[in-house]
Amino acid sequence: MKVINGGVTAAKGFKAASCAANIKYEGRTDMAMVYSDTPCECAGTFTSNVVKAACVMWDKEITESGRPMQAVVINSGIANACTGKEGYDACIATARAVEEGTGIPYDTVAVASTGVIGMQLPVEKLTAGVRKMVPALGETAEAGTDASRAIMTTDTVNKEAAVTFEIGTKTVTLGGMSKGSGMIHPNMCTMLAFLTTDASIDKELMQKALSEVVKDTFNMISVDGDTSTNDTLLLMANGEAGNERIVSDGEGYAAFKEALFYVCKTLAVKMAKDGEGASKLFTARVVNASDKEEARTLARSVISSSLSKAAIFGCDANFGRFLCAMGYSGVDFDQNSVELFFESAAGKLQVFKMGVPLDFDEDAALKILKEDEVTVLIDMHEGKEEATAWGCDLTYDYVKINADYRS
Amino acid sequence: MKVINGGVTAAKGFKAASCAANIKYEGRTDMAMVYSDTPCECAGTFTSNVVKAACVMWDKEITESGRPMQAVVINSGIANACTGKEGYDACIATARAVEEGTGIPYDTVAVASTGVIGMQLPVEKLTAGVRKMVPALGETAEAGTDASRAIMTTDTVNKEAAVTFEIGTKTVTLGGMSKGSGMIHPNMCTMLAFLTTDASIDKELMQKALSEVVKDTFNMISVDGDTSTNDTLLLMANGEAGNERIVSDGEGYAAFKEALFYVCKTLAVKMAKDGEGASKLFTARVVNASDKEEARTLARSVISSSLSKAAIFGCDANFGRFLCAMGYSGVDFDQNSVELFFESAAGKLQVFKMGVPLDFDEDAALKILKEDEVTVLIDMHEGKEEATAWGCDLTYDYVKINADYRS
Repeated sequence: MKVINGGVTAAKGFKAASCAANIKYEGRTDMAMVYSDTPCECAGTFTSNVVKAACVMWDKEITESGRPMQAVVINSGIANACTGKEGYDACIATARAVEEGTGIPYDTVAVASTGVIGMQLPVEKLTAGVRKMVPALGETAEAGTDASRAIMTTDTVNKEAAVTFEIGTKTVTLGGMSKGSGMIHPNMCTMLAFLTTDASIDKELMQKALSEVVKDTFNMISVDGDTSTNDTLLLMANGEAGNERIVSDGEGYAAFKEALFYVCKTLAVKMAKDGEGASKLFTARVVNASDKEEARTLARSVISSSLSKAAIFGCDANFGRFLCAMGYSGVDFDQNSVELFFESAAGKLQVFKMGVPLDFDEDAALKILKEDEVTVLIDMHEGKEEATAWGCDLTYDYVKINADYRS
Repeated sequence: MKVINGGVTAAKGFKAASCAANIKYEGRTDMAMVYSDTPCECAGTFTSNVVKAACVMWDKEITESGRPMQAVVINSGIANACTGKEGYDACIATARAVEEGTGIPYDTVAVASTGVIGMQLPVEKLTAGVRKMVPALGETAEAGTDASRAIMTTDTVNKEAAVTFEIGTKTVTLGGMSKGSGMIHPNMCTMLAFLTTDASIDKELMQKALSEVVKDTFNMISVDGDTSTNDTLLLMANGEAGNERIVSDGEGYAAFKEALFYVCKTLAVKMAKDGEGASKLFTARVVNASDKEEARTLARSVISSSLSKAAIFGCDANFGRFLCAMGYSGVDFDQNSVELFFESAAGKLQVFKMGVPLDFDEDAALKILKEDEVTVLIDMHEGKEEATAWGCDLTYDYVKINADYRS
């Protein structure tokens, strides 16, 4: 596997475009489109929130129907959630505009939205945006990057990743983009992420790989504990790499899954690090747990705790808050077999050993905690399972961004 | 039932004292003691966090043993959690000091702690504190108020409540104090609360009343979603009111439970309003739900959401965040049968009706949201159950307090 520059246009046969549709933001692009020259097998995971955005319901229907997917249209600014029938009709109108412009069937066009909940989309602006983007579709890396910028809301950096890998004699490419900074606590999926690949792969196997990979990537990040109404992860595969079709769980599938894991993890960690107001990436790594799912739960609980996040912001080695967060996570464990360490580029320091706080060097702790990527390593001494979760610190800017987001 | 001034010393036969033991805070009182002239029936509820403080384990043992309880000693500054055997020994040493000073058996003395997790208590300072407090025990309202001040950590106001009620020809009193401002997301109980009554009541009935009342009071508040390692609620009844002993679920029990509910609710709401950094009390009231427990879950999810709390701080009528929080709460419901209203002393305004956002008056919303007590009323149109949860807004000061709490 080789990491390359690029995003949604890295794989053969994929194009992208973006435009300023003036949906809510002014003076910047706020619509993007991803398009495949040929119909794609598709897989997806969606928010587990029972209040699902209209576009989530639309995309779920396509993904589960067995129909191919050939394009995705995304807008930022308004989430199209809690909008009733009018919101669902806006999805159909957007897809119809793509059909009119490209000739592909409207029911193979996914749509996605991110922004304010409980506000109707301006349908005319959306369809006008589609009409602008269709003739502008391009296969360059720049076209992909522009699309990744157009889907940002409170994100401060755009998020892309891509890799190539070999299946037999063929080089296959998988790339993608994502957005997400607030209302990030994915459950079965994340905010918005779009992956494209030229691999030829069976739809069910692709969904299996995606569902498994999501558990250890997008589902292991949190910014604020709020699971969005709009979380959507779509993966489109057009088969243009010409590889022998992946139809079983063998070598080709393993290579595909490794690539998928890398791209998903890279995008997920970028989201965590760019959490609203964040000044640090805050990682929790749980090792030697007796159960994989419990390891995930413990790691997620630590990076989701407001008090742990505030301590990381303040460079305060207040490790008791991590133990507290592990304790209320729902996982049963014995604090007397737990060890805790702080780790960063500046070193590693143990602070808790088998139920007893250590008399550690505060200056050494401060040096480690001042780095912009900090890990708490938690050794459970129970078994052999491990999991890692990524979050960020809780800062004044998080409050500032979210106290006046809508107005 | 009549609301009166007072706290833990309101009921007959209860005394309190406090002192500056210099445990972690300087220049203020940081130890308190509550004492009954005669042995008490006791009931308690404790944190559900699997990482339980040493004092929680000690108090649970007394409460479940069937032994009477006659005193409680509380310190603020250090939580005595994650402290192993040394921490448990500190509880015993404290109780032994009370035995030496008063003659009551050490295994009828509860202890409670609040403060930093993962730090050992200075046992000598604790026992010296007990020796100072025993001769200073007083039955005045001031002694109770001083005790309620000594148990504060980041609290900005002390918290007391008391009522009297009649059982037959006898007047019974029930009062209490609590502390709690951060790491507040009680589950089975709350931070620290101590209730005293001169009622004569069967121990099992008292525990039943307490466990039921807690569900709709202390368990319905949240400041930051972090369930503490130290949550402790103790209720002591010494029978000095001389009422006919409450031994069954009749009129006397109903009067007792009503009084208990009032005192618990009053203390709980005071905690929510005094949440770390809070500028507003943020209440969610769910009505016409099909299930009581689901109503509680929905209300708690709304007031626990960081994004909802930040919107309340910013006086932003961003009601979509409430719907989002309801959606990820784990409760299944149909957004098309939901109505949402904002309510405060300044008025009431509907913003969402049966799945559709309303085009409401932003100025009217702002006026309502600028009040320092704001309620979101959520009508589920599903059944007849209701529940209320109390929280606070998320402010810059919350981050400030928690970024440098330990240092």
